[in-house]
Amino acid sequence: MIENPIAPTIPYDEDGKHHGFLRLPHSRNESAWGAIMIPITVIRNGDGPTALLTGANHGDEYEGPIALQVLAHELEPRQIRGRVIIVPYMNYPAFRAATRVSPIDMVNLNRAFPGAPDGTATMKIADYFTETLVPMADIVLDYHSGGKTLDFLPFACAHYLDSVSQQAACVAAVEAFNAPFTLMLREIDNIGMYDTTVESQGKVFVTTELGGGGTATAASARIARRGARNVLIHAGILEGEIEREPSVLLDMPGDDCYHFATVEGLVEPLVDLGEPVMAGAPLARIWSPDRTGLMPLEIRAQRSGVLAARHFPGLIQTGDCLAVVATAIEGGELPIS
Amino acid sequence: MIENPIAPTIPYDEDGKHHGFLRLPHSRNESAWGAIMIPITVIRNGDGPTALLTGANHGDEYEGPIALQVLAHELEPRQIRGRVIIVPYMNYPAFRAATRVSPIDMVNLNRAFPGAPDGTATMKIADYFTETLVPMADIVLDYHSGGKTLDFLPFACAHYLDSVSQQAACVAAVEAFNAPFTLMLREIDNIGMYDTTVESQGKVFVTTELGGGGTATAASARIARRGARNVLIHAGILEGEIEREPSVLLDMPGDDCYHFATVEGLVEPLVDLGEPVMAGAPLARIWSPDRTGLMPLEIRAQRSGVLAARHFPGLIQTGDCLAVVATAIEGGELPIS
Amino acid sequence: MIENPIAPTIPYDEDGKHHGFLRLPHSRNESAWGAIMIPITVIRNGDGPTALLTGANHGDEYEGPIALQVLAHELEPRQIRGRVIIVPYMNYPAFRAATRVSPIDMVNLNRAFPGAPDGTATMKIADYFTETLVPMADIVLDYHSGGKTLDFLPFACAHYLDSVSQQAACVAAVEAFNAPFTLMLREIDNIGMYDTTVESQGKVFVTTELGGGGTATAASARIARRGARNVLIHAGILEGEIEREPSVLLDMPGDDCYHFATVEGLVEPLVDLGEPVMAGAPLARIWSPDRTGLMPLEIRAQRSGVLAARHFPGLIQTGDCLAVVATAIEGGELPIS
Amino acid sequence: MIENPIAPTIPYDEDGKHHGFLRLPHSRNESAWGAIMIPITVIRNGDGPTALLTGANHGDEYEGPIALQVLAHELEPRQIRGRVIIVPYMNYPAFRAATRVSPIDMVNLNRAFPGAPDGTATMKIADYFTETLVPMADIVLDYHSGGKTLDFLPFACAHYLDSVSQQAACVAAVEAFNAPFTLMLREIDNIGMYDTTVESQGKVFVTTELGGGGTATAASARIARRGARNVLIHAGILEGEIEREPSVLLDMPGDDCYHFATVEGLVEPLVDLGEPVMAGAPLARIWSPDRTGLMPLEIRAQRSGVLAARHFPGLIQTGDCLAVVATAIEGGELPIS
Amino acid sequence: MIENPIAPTIPYDEDGKHHGFLRLPHSRNESAWGAIMIPITVIRNGDGPTALLTGANHGDEYEGPIALQVLAHELEPRQIRGRVIIVPYMNYPAFRAATRVSPIDMVNLNRAFPGAPDGTATMKIADYFTETLVPMADIVLDYHSGGKTLDFLPFACAHYLDSVSQQAACVAAVEAFNAPFTLMLREIDNIGMYDTTVESQGKVFVTTELGGGGTATAASARIARRGARNVLIHAGILEGEIEREPSVLLDMPGDDCYHFATVEGLVEPLVDLGEPVMAGAPLARIWSPDRTGLMPLEIRAQRSGVLAARHFPGLIQTGDCLAVVATAIEGGELPIS
Amino acid sequence: MIENPIAPTIPYDEDGKHHGFLRLPHSRNESAWGAIMIPITVIRNGDGPTALLTGANHGDEYEGPIALQVLAHELEPRQIRGRVIIVPYMNYPAFRAATRVSPIDMVNLNRAFPGAPDGTATMKIADYFTETLVPMADIVLDYHSGGKTLDFLPFACAHYLDSVSQQAACVAAVEAFNAPFTLMLREIDNIGMYDTTVESQGKVFVTTELGGGGTATAASARIARRGARNVLIHAGILEGEIEREPSVLLDMPGDDCYHFATVEGLVEPLVDLGEPVMAGAPLARIWSPDRTGLMPLEIRAQRSGVLAARHFPGLIQTGDCLAVVATAIEGGELPIS
Repeated sequence: MIENPIAPTIPYDEDGKHHGFLRLPHSRNESAWGAIMIPITVIRNGDGPTALLTGANHGDEYEGPIALQVLAHELEPRQIRGRVIIVPYMNYPAFRAATRVSPIDMVNLNRAFPGAPDGTATMKIADYFTETLVPMADIVLDYHSGGKTLDFLPFACAHYLDSVSQQAACVAAVEAFNAPFTLMLREIDNIGMYDTTVESQGKVFVTTELGGGGTATAASARIARRGARNVLIHAGILEGEIEREPSVLLDMPGDDCYHFATVEGLVEPLVDLGEPVMAGAPLARIWSPDRTGLMPLEIRAQRSGVLAARHFPGLIQTGDCLAVVATAIEGGELPIS
Repeated sequence: MIENPIAPTIPYDEDGKHHGFLRLPHSRNESAWGAIMIPITVIRNGDGPTALLTGANHGDEYEGPIALQVLAHELEPRQIRGRVIIVPYMNYPAFRAATRVSPIDMVNLNRAFPGAPDGTATMKIADYFTETLVPMADIVLDYHSGGKTLDFLPFACAHYLDSVSQQAACVAAVEAFNAPFTLMLREIDNIGMYDTTVESQGKVFVTTELGGGGTATAASARIARRGARNVLIHAGILEGEIEREPSVLLDMPGDDCYHFATVEGLVEPLVDLGEPVMAGAPLARIWSPDRTGLMPLEIRAQRSGVLAARHFPGLIQTGDCLAVVATAIEGGELPIS
Repeated sequence: MIENPIAPTIPYDEDGKHHGFLRLPHSRNESAWGAIMIPITVIRNGDGPTALLTGANHGDEYEGPIALQVLAHELEPRQIRGRVIIVPYMNYPAFRAATRVSPIDMVNLNRAFPGAPDGTATMKIADYFTETLVPMADIVLDYHSGGKTLDFLPFACAHYLDSVSQQAACVAAVEAFNAPFTLMLREIDNIGMYDTTVESQGKVFVTTELGGGGTATAASARIARRGARNVLIHAGILEGEIEREPSVLLDMPGDDCYHFATVEGLVEPLVDLGEPVMAGAPLARIWSPDRTGLMPLEIRAQRSGVLAARHFPGLIQTGDCLAVVATAIEGGELPIS
Repeated sequence: MIENPIAPTIPYDEDGKHHGFLRLPHSRNESAWGAIMIPITVIRNGDGPTALLTGANHGDEYEGPIALQVLAHELEPRQIRGRVIIVPYMNYPAFRAATRVSPIDMVNLNRAFPGAPDGTATMKIADYFTETLVPMADIVLDYHSGGKTLDFLPFACAHYLDSVSQQAACVAAVEAFNAPFTLMLREIDNIGMYDTTVESQGKVFVTTELGGGGTATAASARIARRGARNVLIHAGILEGEIEREPSVLLDMPGDDCYHFATVEGLVEPLVDLGEPVMAGAPLARIWSPDRTGLMPLEIRAQRSGVLAARHFPGLIQTGDCLAVVATAIEGGELPIS
Repeated sequence: MIENPIAPTIPYDEDGKHHGFLRLPHSRNESAWGAIMIPITVIRNGDGPTALLTGANHGDEYEGPIALQVLAHELEPRQIRGRVIIVPYMNYPAFRAATRVSPIDMVNLNRAFPGAPDGTATMKIADYFTETLVPMADIVLDYHSGGKTLDFLPFACAHYLDSVSQQAACVAAVEAFNAPFTLMLREIDNIGMYDTTVESQGKVFVTTELGGGGTATAASARIARRGARNVLIHAGILEGEIEREPSVLLDMPGDDCYHFATVEGLVEPLVDLGEPVMAGAPLARIWSPDRTGLMPLEIRAQRSGVLAARHFPGLIQTGDCLAVVATAIEGGELPIS
Repeated sequence: MIENPIAPTIPYDEDGKHHGFLRLPHSRNESAWGAIMIPITVIRNGDGPTALLTGANHGDEYEGPIALQVLAHELEPRQIRGRVIIVPYMNYPAFRAATRVSPIDMVNLNRAFPGAPDGTATMKIADYFTETLVPMADIVLDYHSGGKTLDFLPFACAHYLDSVSQQAACVAAVEAFNAPFTLMLREIDNIGMYDTTVESQGKVFVTTELGGGGTATAASARIARRGARNVLIHAGILEGEIEREPSVLLDMPGDDCYHFATVEGLVEPLVDLGEPVMAGAPLARIWSPDRTGLMPLEIRAQRSGVLAARHFPGLIQTGDCLAVVATAIEGGELPIS
């Protein structure tokens, strides 16, 4: 049984607010006795539930890091009961490089779970969460956005789970997060995901997609900050009232929600995020990247609904996801309450 | 006198619609007898004025390329009088690399004018426009957006010029473009710009900033497409009515419009594009990129106005422009009529 | 049991000719929801045997891709009985990069078999062939050439196998391919090879080396095209007569066929491909790459025969294979008939 | 007047054979007080004419380096009268990197003449030849081949010059070189070429294209070795008989000799070097690099003749030269005798 | 059971001195049939013990390579009894790249043991030592220094082992090496180390740290050369007297010996290697790398002792080891005699 | 006349201590409206002389940056009369990259003078010093060390100048700096140097070489700090006594002081810095980097003296400076007093 080499520089079990690092020794050409230093804040006030809040699982997604730096700065032990563990830059090497995957091993952290204590750097990080941090938690909130290559309507999301009670608890937490949009997902390809690891340990889990493009806006940062506080209140850790605004329930019921590029080229978008889409209507045209005078390829909607996600960069490659059309169930209810 | 090595594969003076390339021989490791092939379309119908329309002067700006591919596809000789020269991907190597500057010589085309026929690849492109294409034109429209690192309110723009009549002609063309915002600029550091080269030849010149972030939206593409048609109608080349919607007149009267980052870090935006700003109010906070527990740096507005441009990526470096606050003169008039 | 994530965009079991892709989801910095799209053509006409034809197992070998693009273009369902599955660019990322191994994971596809459904991209491709495509096939033809760093006399090749009947079937197919040279190989280091995977499933297998240097010639392309048709006719799939020309039987009976460089430097070849070699005669000289005035190293033939393969680039590294001397058995017979 | 920083480590004016370096100080990250060391051999025996022989003007062309290493090794002072200056790796950094242009400054040496003593490293090399080595010479032989991306029929070549007597002297030397093919060229774009610099100093100049693809063969190396000796005998420096075999006179009379790719893709060659070509017959087809099922682009010969040069790599980019068709004048005579 | 592909080009069991290579086939883009050639010398004279001497386990450490090249050059069979196996550049690809880890797979050889015969190149090298070379040896000497990023007082070192007799044998060999400093180490994180592999096979093992910074000095080279001879004499292989000078016994008794940087910046060292340190005294200050006017971070000694190791480069990253303070036990004795 | 785009963020003419930046706008792919921010401190107290102190002219030299950060931190306006301008990281991009030359344009700042306001980034920095900062100064101190690839005995240095009085003033300032060694240099290749620019403006100039290897030691940092204070006292700006220790006068009277590597390989140093050298004695041996069993190349001293500088990395390239032997004139006097 190999031990994970990561060590925290701060205690998990002392009351108060502690800022420090998860220290992962990392011998490399640039530093024989160097380390990856992942920032962490632990805030504790007596017994009570533990919330684990994470950002930058993908290094180019910014709403989570922003909300968690604000929270680590503002939240005081006296305001809470129990414990809040905040890791704003989960895949720290990727966050510093502003890339989706780690520049060290090119591994996507969210496909590296449950990880391995003797794997690459990213797999060691995954293993530490799996074996040490997640087991400490009662509720886990992991922030995502679209990153540099995707853009999403801002939503929080729960998964369909085998356990009815766990799913109900997750849905309640997602509702508490109160993003403008709310989604139930049946994850098909969930191998290697943090989500799966957390859920398989029976924890309450909330995840999000709050925008994208490798930026954050004042609006998306506000949603992220509010969501963190709401979830902590919901979990009984933070005192206060949950701030609620109406949230639209979205569904992505089938494969035909996803529209892929079948040629490379220049994207001319014809519909923007949140706009309604009619089945058969053009979503975008793709123009030749190397000449004029050719017919563009028109991508038409495979179903009616609302544009919920889109390819972000101006150029697209064959096989890239161009657009996702979701069904908005405005009067809908999440499948638990 | 060295001759520019670029040769067009299509004629400039024949009626009809011709799609082809500007062929720039480019001997390199990957191809001893290779070439840079810049797509070009020339549409001509008898005598009349010539419009020169360009996109991707910076390779990561997409509204221009989209509008010009559409125009090259849709515009028919019979619809026009005179000539339209369309170069949707002006700095073609940068466009293919999706970068601001050319990957070949790392030169910013818009600081390489007037260029040189025996310079680097980008300088040869600049020289060809200076010596061959701009002299053919009566009116020149060059599309810009913010690229991957800036985001702008969509505006078209004219410069203060020494010649009253030239300035008036430019302003009239900018008004015809009819972007949602309109701007007069006194370019300070105009050395090497395409704008300066075009204006110094006495041409009518329109430039724009129509968004940014390295993407285009359905909304910004629509503005770009409409602007091209409006300018051609205004120039007497295309038949039809100019489509007009209200446009807000913006001014950036001083250096205090520009707000720069004085530390590196994670940007928490507090105001979005188009939102009002009060002098002294915080525009954004910058959080430490490597630890929690530090006070953020707050950037406060140096003047009141509206947020007209912002740094796009989630991370910022010391010295980067974080935000531009403009003054909106809603009932204002452009300085000519 | 993890499922391979590759999905075809076309059916395997419908009559007609279908062009499409093997779609391998590939999340990366450049595209969060992107995919590797490997072109595939399936041509089917009723029941009958299945042939699986592949090129660009190594991405810098071109005779296979050429012959298979031609075949996918020209072959019509009505001309065949059974099914032809054509994958001209097996290691598509390597083919686009014009490199031997994949630029994504630096893995040599032909040493990655049987592959793994949760391995790197190249290992997923290997697994899909192992688990899905090869099992569908009765006969498999995999084209190779020397790539950018080796050059071969054009030959087709069968392996010595434990099963007498399988070996006989392979030899018959290799003879049908009818390359100018024909070879029997006892593969020593066959771990990870596609060949081994195919043969271990009891399939009839033909492989080739048809030239090299990272190019194809009109002559080598002709051999490749003819070979594909001959093999399909031999398999009873395509109607017609096998085109036959004389083929020289080659043998590489021992380790002393292989000549390695023991210094780095500039290669002066003294014998060309196909020329006779006398034991002890110089094959090449290696000159100092950094100075004049030094004695060259002379590499002398360890045995008599014919030069069957050679190092291609002008410079050579210590340890590189410089030359392979084979024995030509002109009146020889393949060990089955 | 800035002095060129290159210094030879051997004397130019002493009898005997001296091997050494042209030492170009080159301060860089890897060596603050480092140098580029270009190998040189000077062989002298009393008064008499001087020949300057150079290879690797482009770093990926090997016939010249081979012939000149052999010559530097074998030629003894007592065999000659006068002086032979041998620089087998003229653009030494490019030669070591096996690239056409220098990896230090990405400059093509053969477009950097006359050079500059305070320019980049490649420009300093050019300047040293222009100011020091060429003035010492009576006759200059510069070896070229196609490099990694082109392949040529082996020819030696003279240029049309303003001076009738200089042209006649050059043609005589080219005939003495006695390559299998011989060519007269009217260089159009001769700016920056070594050829132009040498010729403008009134020297006798011979250049060649002896193959390509980034390799040499036993046959092409033989032509190169023989040519060096023949030229030295012709110049009255080396004793002996010129070895003569028949040489075919080629002409490339117009722009229509050159055939360029108008799409990118996979090249299927239909004609090989030296084969006859009929006007209108297909030279090659270009297939889609990313899918099956598309029509290939067929490139047809613009004139009749013989295939004299071709694109070498298996893949081609838009704008690359695909093929050169020359006219073989078998009974022809060079325009001097 | 997969066989390791490495083969030696020289015999291990013949008397005499043989210079050759460990040949590891390595197919890659640059050479399809290439190899990694690791230099090796075997010197044998009849029966007797075998010593295995290795350098460049990390590729940027030079005392070992120097001492072992000297030894391989000077040592003659007649001077010894038994066998000496010398591998001066153990991780040869890293040595040529002057990097700690292999440029091929970015693996740290000294964390890759016991290795794998079908792993990456570095893992194959580890496996060959584990399975073939170490089993041949009675005594193993592996040279280390600090590499480019650390600098050490010159010491030899033994580990605390479970076997009293093995530990005593190791300590005796370390004393024989006779570096200026001598150390006993309780390796905590010994997973993947060569040391562990050698010791677990019951061998006598000596390791060192003899300086650092990516250089060697005349003084450190002298220590390394003397150590090799001393160890061979101690092992009964080489005749002669052990050269002995006084050696200071060092101890690193706890975690508080190690001082880490908690910010990035410019290092101002305040104590040099070998100088005494008082607990609480400043060891170094770290200044801001991007501005003036900030307070430096002062790193104070956590214990008294002597500075035994230090971060070498002028800049430091958060998490890097800045300094190691050891306890010098000048009259101390190693825990065996 | 083009204006230099650099602007200071602090005043040069106000009393007090100001920390800020030289702001050089730098539009690039990573930031369209970004800047290079070079830290600067200006300390002023009334009228009086101006000293300009600079470090990191080469980005991998650390004594200057350390001494100048300390000075900018400790020096208070009330301690001085006149003005001190401190630029600790002159070539800031190179300093952050820890490289000799700028990573932006690969230009060596100390060969880019006098610079150009419209040149590359490094040339703009040079121009700003030439046109703005140096003219403000009475005395200029520029710190150098050997960087990553050279190591020097610590010395300060003056140049032989045409003006007797200027030379005398420089020598006096160099003596005041009081490094352990002192040197007079006749710079041969002084084109592009900062030194030349400063001296040609008639300023008093001190430069140094204080160590090397890309590190600093406590000892070398102490010399650098003391030198800065001594020079300011000498200049009449700072109150206090000059700290003086004995300094050895060195001379490098001829080309034979410099010893260059004539092969590449592994360096075995035989003499350390400061050790005496006898003409003809070996300085170092160079061993083959790719095999054992070859004779090393021995580099012998061309003159007697003391080893004053040496190649630092363990590996060396042909043409690199291996060693500099100086003559120590222990009772010598500098050529002025």
